[in-house]
Amino acid sequence: MDLNEALEKVRPYLKQVRFEHTKRVVDTAVKLSEYNDVDLYKTEIAAAFHDLAKYWPRDEMKRIILQEEYLPKDLLHYHHELWHGPVGAYLVKHKYGIEEQDILDSIRYHTTGRANMGRLEKIVFLADYIEPGRDFPGINEVRDMAWNDLDKACLMSLQNTIQFLMSKGATIYPDTFQAYNDFTQKLSQ
Amino acid sequence: MDLNEALEKVRPYLKQVRFEHTKRVVDTAVKLSEYNDVDLYKTEIAAAFHDLAKYWPRDEMKRIILQEEYLPKDLLHYHHELWHGPVGAYLVKHKYGIEEQDILDSIRYHTTGRANMGRLEKIVFLADYIEPGRDFPGINEVRDMAWNDLDKACLMSLQNTIQFLMSKGATIYPDTFQAYNDFTQKLSQ
Repeated sequence: MDLNEALEKVRPYLKQVRFEHTKRVVDTAVKLSEYNDVDLYKTEIAAAFHDLAKYWPRDEMKRIILQEEYLPKDLLHYHHELWHGPVGAYLVKHKYGIEEQDILDSIRYHTTGRANMGRLEKIVFLADYIEPGRDFPGINEVRDMAWNDLDKACLMSLQNTIQFLMSKGATIYPDTFQAYNDFTQKLSQ
Repeated sequence: MDLNEALEKVRPYLKQVRFEHTKRVVDTAVKLSEYNDVDLYKTEIAAAFHDLAKYWPRDEMKRIILQEEYLPKDLLHYHHELWHGPVGAYLVKHKYGIEEQDILDSIRYHTTGRANMGRLEKIVFLADYIEPGRDFPGINEVRDMAWNDLDKACLMSLQNTIQFLMSKGATIYPDTFQAYNDFTQKLSQ
């Protein structure tokens, strides 16, 4: 499957604005992968499919999470916004036969992050955060850092996200905390 | 053992300023317990002993954490400032024969918090945070809230602590995140 095929498979499941976001994530991720010497094919496929399940019916996402042994059930106690990553990875594997674990993990963890992220995971996570259509407080500092140090840029985006969720009085999924601790530990060594 | 005996047992292990802090934590915790109808004897003992291990030799704290099955070993990967609560609870039990689980838990979790804190735990945790000698950004809001809603006051102090640790680029112990999520979830119901 090439990038155009992947985008055509995703398009029917996304609203137009979300599809435009997806194309910008692909562009940003490809630039980051070129810069960091990461596989471009995997980058394109992971970025193209990262939001596949964004508008998936909530009851079907729930069914998939309950049915798949490797998906943690505690997701169901957190905001459903967190479900589309893990469910998207499941769908990409079972609907389109994509087997590469790093592609699947990049889709699965693109919203929460996690400890010990691989390079492709970091790139999709960051591209989703900094693509040119995004506008958060502090985003330009993360954009600049992305070209200097992927780990530091990921840490900055995690800090911003935790701060934002706390300011809204929202719960924070454990993977996000663990990602924060993991990057903090690695960067202080 | 009464309050004065407990304080006399603690005094030799603390610097003078830390002993003064301890007495203020006792006073604040007692007021909160009176207000919330919590056992005053337990409050006095827990508050008097909460910092017993504050200056305990680091290698002995490490030995105790490694030796005691119920103490999580991951503590050793986090800042040693987090060790004195769990080690203090161990010492209070084995050195002074205090067996009441809620006293021991209040000492053990007074720095990190945890999910599902009991009332005595919340009171010692808060008293340690708001005693009149403390001066953090946002502390007066937590002081006011402590007399309205213990859970909300705990949540505010956890938010401040997480924010402070993130601004220092420090790791955050999982119990603290879980406490944050737990109070957030309970208060949004």
